[in-house]
Amino acid sequence: VIAKTAASGGPGLLPEVLRHTSALAQDQALLKEDLVGSLAHLAMLSRQRIVPRSDAAKIREALLHLAAEATAGDLALPPEEDVHMAVEAELTRRLGEVAGRLHTARSRNDQIALDLRLHLREHTRLALLELGSMLRAMASRADEERDTILPAYTHRQRAQAISGAYLFCSYGAMFQRDVAAFRFALSQIDASPLGVGALAGTSLPVDREIVRSLLGFSRVTLNGLDTVGDRDFALDFSYAAARCHVHCSRIAQDVIDFASTEFGFLKLEGAIACGSSLMPQKRNPDLFELVRARTAAAVGNVVSLFTILRGLPSGYNRDLQEDRSSVLSAGPLLLAVLDALRLGLRHVRFDRERCLAAVTSDYMQAADVAEALVQCGIPFRTAYLAVGRLVADCQAKHLPLAQATAEMARAAHPNLSGEVLSALSPTDAVARKKSAGGTGPEMVEIQIAALHASAGEAEQMAASLPSLDALLTSMREVEL
Amino acid sequence: VIAKTAASGGPGLLPEVLRHTSALAQDQALLKEDLVGSLAHLAMLSRQRIVPRSDAAKIREALLHLAAEATAGDLALPPEEDVHMAVEAELTRRLGEVAGRLHTARSRNDQIALDLRLHLREHTRLALLELGSMLRAMASRADEERDTILPAYTHRQRAQAISGAYLFCSYGAMFQRDVAAFRFALSQIDASPLGVGALAGTSLPVDREIVRSLLGFSRVTLNGLDTVGDRDFALDFSYAAARCHVHCSRIAQDVIDFASTEFGFLKLEGAIACGSSLMPQKRNPDLFELVRARTAAAVGNVVSLFTILRGLPSGYNRDLQEDRSSVLSAGPLLLAVLDALRLGLRHVRFDRERCLAAVTSDYMQAADVAEALVQCGIPFRTAYLAVGRLVADCQAKHLPLAQATAEMARAAHPNLSGEVLSALSPTDAVARKKSAGGTGPEMVEIQIAALHASAGEAEQMAASLPSLDALLTSMREVEL
Amino acid sequence: VIAKTAASGGPGLLPEVLRHTSALAQDQALLKEDLVGSLAHLAMLSRQRIVPRSDAAKIREALLHLAAEATAGDLALPPEEDVHMAVEAELTRRLGEVAGRLHTARSRNDQIALDLRLHLREHTRLALLELGSMLRAMASRADEERDTILPAYTHRQRAQAISGAYLFCSYGAMFQRDVAAFRFALSQIDASPLGVGALAGTSLPVDREIVRSLLGFSRVTLNGLDTVGDRDFALDFSYAAARCHVHCSRIAQDVIDFASTEFGFLKLEGAIACGSSLMPQKRNPDLFELVRARTAAAVGNVVSLFTILRGLPSGYNRDLQEDRSSVLSAGPLLLAVLDALRLGLRHVRFDRERCLAAVTSDYMQAADVAEALVQCGIPFRTAYLAVGRLVADCQAKHLPLAQATAEMARAAHPNLSGEVLSALSPTDAVARKKSAGGTGPEMVEIQIAALHASAGEAEQMAASLPSLDALLTSMREVEL
Amino acid sequence: VIAKTAASGGPGLLPEVLRHTSALAQDQALLKEDLVGSLAHLAMLSRQRIVPRSDAAKIREALLHLAAEATAGDLALPPEEDVHMAVEAELTRRLGEVAGRLHTARSRNDQIALDLRLHLREHTRLALLELGSMLRAMASRADEERDTILPAYTHRQRAQAISGAYLFCSYGAMFQRDVAAFRFALSQIDASPLGVGALAGTSLPVDREIVRSLLGFSRVTLNGLDTVGDRDFALDFSYAAARCHVHCSRIAQDVIDFASTEFGFLKLEGAIACGSSLMPQKRNPDLFELVRARTAAAVGNVVSLFTILRGLPSGYNRDLQEDRSSVLSAGPLLLAVLDALRLGLRHVRFDRERCLAAVTSDYMQAADVAEALVQCGIPFRTAYLAVGRLVADCQAKHLPLAQATAEMARAAHPNLSGEVLSALSPTDAVARKKSAGGTGPEMVEIQIAALHASAGEAEQMAASLPSLDALLTSMREVEL
Repeated sequence: VIAKTAASGGPGLLPEVLRHTSALAQDQALLKEDLVGSLAHLAMLSRQRIVPRSDAAKIREALLHLAAEATAGDLALPPEEDVHMAVEAELTRRLGEVAGRLHTARSRNDQIALDLRLHLREHTRLALLELGSMLRAMASRADEERDTILPAYTHRQRAQAISGAYLFCSYGAMFQRDVAAFRFALSQIDASPLGVGALAGTSLPVDREIVRSLLGFSRVTLNGLDTVGDRDFALDFSYAAARCHVHCSRIAQDVIDFASTEFGFLKLEGAIACGSSLMPQKRNPDLFELVRARTAAAVGNVVSLFTILRGLPSGYNRDLQEDRSSVLSAGPLLLAVLDALRLGLRHVRFDRERCLAAVTSDYMQAADVAEALVQCGIPFRTAYLAVGRLVADCQAKHLPLAQATAEMARAAHPNLSGEVLSALSPTDAVARKKSAGGTGPEMVEIQIAALHASAGEAEQMAASLPSLDALLTSMREVEL
Repeated sequence: VIAKTAASGGPGLLPEVLRHTSALAQDQALLKEDLVGSLAHLAMLSRQRIVPRSDAAKIREALLHLAAEATAGDLALPPEEDVHMAVEAELTRRLGEVAGRLHTARSRNDQIALDLRLHLREHTRLALLELGSMLRAMASRADEERDTILPAYTHRQRAQAISGAYLFCSYGAMFQRDVAAFRFALSQIDASPLGVGALAGTSLPVDREIVRSLLGFSRVTLNGLDTVGDRDFALDFSYAAARCHVHCSRIAQDVIDFASTEFGFLKLEGAIACGSSLMPQKRNPDLFELVRARTAAAVGNVVSLFTILRGLPSGYNRDLQEDRSSVLSAGPLLLAVLDALRLGLRHVRFDRERCLAAVTSDYMQAADVAEALVQCGIPFRTAYLAVGRLVADCQAKHLPLAQATAEMARAAHPNLSGEVLSALSPTDAVARKKSAGGTGPEMVEIQIAALHASAGEAEQMAASLPSLDALLTSMREVEL
Repeated sequence: VIAKTAASGGPGLLPEVLRHTSALAQDQALLKEDLVGSLAHLAMLSRQRIVPRSDAAKIREALLHLAAEATAGDLALPPEEDVHMAVEAELTRRLGEVAGRLHTARSRNDQIALDLRLHLREHTRLALLELGSMLRAMASRADEERDTILPAYTHRQRAQAISGAYLFCSYGAMFQRDVAAFRFALSQIDASPLGVGALAGTSLPVDREIVRSLLGFSRVTLNGLDTVGDRDFALDFSYAAARCHVHCSRIAQDVIDFASTEFGFLKLEGAIACGSSLMPQKRNPDLFELVRARTAAAVGNVVSLFTILRGLPSGYNRDLQEDRSSVLSAGPLLLAVLDALRLGLRHVRFDRERCLAAVTSDYMQAADVAEALVQCGIPFRTAYLAVGRLVADCQAKHLPLAQATAEMARAAHPNLSGEVLSALSPTDAVARKKSAGGTGPEMVEIQIAALHASAGEAEQMAASLPSLDALLTSMREVEL
Repeated sequence: VIAKTAASGGPGLLPEVLRHTSALAQDQALLKEDLVGSLAHLAMLSRQRIVPRSDAAKIREALLHLAAEATAGDLALPPEEDVHMAVEAELTRRLGEVAGRLHTARSRNDQIALDLRLHLREHTRLALLELGSMLRAMASRADEERDTILPAYTHRQRAQAISGAYLFCSYGAMFQRDVAAFRFALSQIDASPLGVGALAGTSLPVDREIVRSLLGFSRVTLNGLDTVGDRDFALDFSYAAARCHVHCSRIAQDVIDFASTEFGFLKLEGAIACGSSLMPQKRNPDLFELVRARTAAAVGNVVSLFTILRGLPSGYNRDLQEDRSSVLSAGPLLLAVLDALRLGLRHVRFDRERCLAAVTSDYMQAADVAEALVQCGIPFRTAYLAVGRLVADCQAKHLPLAQATAEMARAAHPNLSGEVLSALSPTDAVARKKSAGGTGPEMVEIQIAALHASAGEAEQMAASLPSLDALLTSMREVEL
């Protein structure tokens, strides 16, 4: 095996060293990426006459065979130190010396950079599709919850009345920002590293543009020494993912609270409520708790990548192999959490009566009353203090604000007519918030439209990216 | 004081609670931002006839006075729980009840979001200017080091010969990516939050577009509930900063290694070399060690912000106040490190002879020889093994590769003519790397041009952003 | 100034370099530690006849003067690169050449290690005192809440009835573990580093035991090269602190939830409830939100220290100076949070009726009924399923479990007699949990006693540590 | 399956929910722990007459069968949501209703806490054994390198001469501290949680002491509500592991530097030197780079656990399941890295001539000369400045310090006799550092003995802990 050649350290290398250093177990996840990249590299070598076309054709056939066997689950790679060496060793077993032409004008340094970029581009594509679906889901749920009136909170204390539509638009707003974060990550991933060799470029007449174009990248990387030591694109992906997890965790937190017996605003349908092994009465929001908790692994990934890169010398260092556990787990973790959250939210229903009761039985319209006073020309802080007195009076009498009498109101401030107070039904309070970004129905309409627009943007971005499978198929026919 | 009103908890609030909860000490750093934001808000309230113009004029004058006193260092704010309340209390002391009009149609929730966005936009502007200077410095240093030939490393082992120009271009490539990261952060910062009130919007006839335009933001935020609980823009800034710190740390690591007696590639000029209190002979690279180490605080900031936001319920929670230590330190820390690194690099000189000697006395052209063989039609892996044999033979005879005899070469492979070997001077090895992204001089030319282009982009972006001081000045004359 | 000598880099050193590298601003916080350490070192030098006694006496007097001036706020140190150099420069200004004897047989490497260890020992002492008070507070509150019956939660769903005493004992259990963590941190801090010089020890006849004993350390460090590069003790302190913050955050989370209108189990007294600048009705738990949030900075500190230390070469590296922002903030942050939490909890009262109502109106005794069935010999899973059926039946009929009829019970399982059910009052449910660690009153008694025991242990550990002030006082009289 | 019972959410639960929430894939790693714990619980239930002895005997036999099948690799568990439910489901399939007795008086909350504690105790045991071996290796290597003289570094600049023995003792000192950290972690792990039920204890007459004693724990946990929500012990383990990784990374950094061509102090034997796929001459220290890099995942684990726990409400929350990826990976990662580092160090040899040459050709004895002057009564700072002048003079004349002439010495300071200088051979410089903790041979002897003592302590602690396999064996015969 090649592990016994100089590539891994010569014949004397202890097997334990290979065991401690091999990335193969994790790299298996990159096999398709590696084959696609090799096929593009091979086409370039052939077109540039660096490898004879007939040899290239043989190698291509063998690579496509490997891909087919891998898809069918029939491929067992030899125990080399990484997927690149394992593929070359297997090719050599099948083709003999001609297989040795494939690694011309590249090193594993630019090769792994390519594999990781292909992998993360694929997962960015999938994340964008998931975000598109999530944004559509938020928009259509907002659509359904226009008439749900519930308290919004600050400091986990009831603050002001909002519509359910507004709540879902606020969730959607977070995912809109995630589309932007993944667009940024994509911009960093989207450069072809292949062709810079170990770090300095090559003296062979390669054409990096051919590889770039075959693999659908927007540009080639600019400096080889930087290219082989750069994992910013992986950090950027992991960051975008962790940030999106934070958003999911915040929504999950709301659901967990709102679904408690005490809040009682949301009911978990049986389809998603989990039980207890000891307490038969339980209907637990496990799905949402796990969505909340999985942020932890995502933040851990970001920290791990930062820790690897901090103070790493220029060029390639084997430390970079340790990016694998973060890079390979980040995408699937996010896709699963987005799917779980969307699934969960579909099976969560508002108890509208209870939501409304929470609003009416409280003092949440106090700020609205203060604003009404302001419209009479009273300075805000004066109005605020006056309404504060009224609230205190109501609280002392155990009355909700809606039941304050005209007399109590006047006592608090001469301009506080009973009329003003009675007008402040929760529905009105919501409807009157007509400022941009507010909970008023017209404003919510705009917000829903914006969610759809962002969904469209995410979907379009995803559609513009070639899938790995499509690339593999295209490689079969590509000119050599 | 207002701390004794309901805003902070009423007359019974224990002073210890204020001491534990007050953000004023940190918020002082946001005073200018707060005043600028209040001035824009005031102009809008006046234009919309929510506040009488004459009152607005009085408040404006008082706000401008505060700003002037703050600049002069003459302003002592009262001990309220944050900068917003302190300013309002001071205004009230000076103007009486009319001061109470300023807080109309806003809450501290949207106000602090505005202050933070103004603050981070300012620091993004400054960071872009620093990045522009850094990119220019890398480009011009690359320009100077075209003829420096030194080893590049993988695994901290000598790998291939490169030019000093190429090394500096590789450093510049990292900062190019930082420009992109700050452009992303800016896109997230660049939205005006003011006017969403506590979370639901307002029933007063505000016009958020006026404030947005006066403050030079590109858009207003879309949903108020999201707006008051959102700190993604702060996370994005801290992330861009930490990523840039990582780049600085990697360059610093190279300098520290190259400046060791053992490498001896770089000399620290006396202007920056630090001494020892015990060992009089020492000339230490403290500046670069600190550049390397300061990544730690930047990563800590990112983790802190993630930790605050994870699982936070929707709406405003006081937890968000704890963003302050990360947000306020991130910008200055980065600016200082970029400045320190640029300063340090100016006072670091290559020992060109020693660099070249390191290249010639070694085996770094082995891959070049293998590529030469490939150009004779030999499969790469075969060529690689042949050159491997030649290297081993040289090593056994304690000869550098450049001194291999024609006989030794032929013994390793029949195509390995002595001619091929003698051609492989370090300078030639560098010059022949003509592939895109390589260390060849033409390629480096392109890379230098790209650094200048990115610098220009950073400078242009910075120039498009209004500085805080310019905003403050503009507020004096703005129509009420 | 010494900064102009070789200690900082010679006369040519740029002032900007000093500005970028100086730790003095942060090191000021270590001035007292530095003086105490110098006084002990001086006594040793004198006793070992390395410094003439008369010179030592002069230096001591000057050092004590500096300490007195610093305490009085009258001391302005010269702008050197750290507190050590600043003190030496000031001494030299006052005493002339004789001041140069103080730095004999030490370097700043072992000196800063000493300062940090003295500082962290002091803060460990204070943290232990705070933990002692906190444990006493939990114990005495548990004592008061014996008769409060409230739901305990899993998945934020009501699970089983417990006493308020049991809840406070569970909080106390976390702080008991913190005592153990600080004991561990102390064991790592508690070694005297002074006397290892720059890294290799010294050829002068020092006696490290004298310094150790004067400063009250348990042992001296074992290897100088390790000693100057070691910050494990700081990491351990920051870890213990962050872990304690996590505990505080969990309690704060409970309080925030329980104090919501929806739960209504806890009332915040006016003494600690904060207001809103816009909504006059609010009584917000800001104090607890900040307690929760401050974990973020503490975790950031741990990450920063890990980031600094990862891959740092042996010996002293200037990177270690960056420990300062984490080390110096960790202690005060924790002390403040513990104080705030204790203060807050004192002003939080249970609404016992509402707590009890939550228990009786639900299905929380289901597991108790299942256990009762088990005592009739029914396999647990069978019993569990039977009670599950009864709960479902009750839920369908909108009855709490307590109102299930004998008929319904028998329908669920023949052994489910009405009698068994009626016995399950919440108070009984609590009382019957007599297993070790359970919520039954006898068990809670044991837990309360354990809290007092841990408090005593913390207090005793704290008392065994000399305070900085006591050390300083003792240095005045110490034999030279 | 039980997943279709209330334990997982009733018959309506969507299969996707189970897919998203199941921990079974990860929990498989805890199967042996789960069976051991169940066997102990069963014995207690039987002895306490809660489960009939004959039923207990049947269940025990079935559990032992499962264990045997699992060991043989023949066991396929049904797809339940975790290992506990999977085992119960399989038992039920084999035994029928009687299997339902096993879950009496416990919940999955205390059960998983037990499994994790057993798992981490086992990995603490293994880590202690590895640390013992590492300490022995450091001690014996120190023994071998007594006569190796090499530079020690500060700021990666040569500082003072030390022996190779001293260097290895400094590495050992870090591992000594790791023994202390794992002792602390063990003290937190070492409490039996079983018997607290879901959170409140149980009304059944369990005896937690029996389980504790059978499983070899030192104590039982004190409060059930705390017990089910506590993962401090896991955090403590992951912290101890990460801290140990940091130590390994620091040693690896030294090796990577010292093995560079430029330093040339260490030679990697062929048994561990890795090659390049492109550059046939390379002998790379991949093993050490990976040791260095793996700290990243370990720090990520700590951050993940902190992130999960921060602000988690009291009681059990499903978030805790996410501890699994950190908890289960932390132990094996550390064991592998310790093994790899030990293996690598065995195959790394000093080039003693080159080490010595580095010392003699430099100025590293400057501090020694200054100390010699101090012994003539000169104040240290004066001596320091004088030697500084001599060093500068030598540097100007391109002479190492050892070749300074008597004349040059006198010019620097009258007391600087040529004799003093000539005495300062590197070997003498090392030998004279006789202060405690110094590099002098007698001091190193003490340090080596201390490493053996710590190794013995680690080994003894490990030996005092029952292995999982031993526990499983003991359960076969235990009285029911």
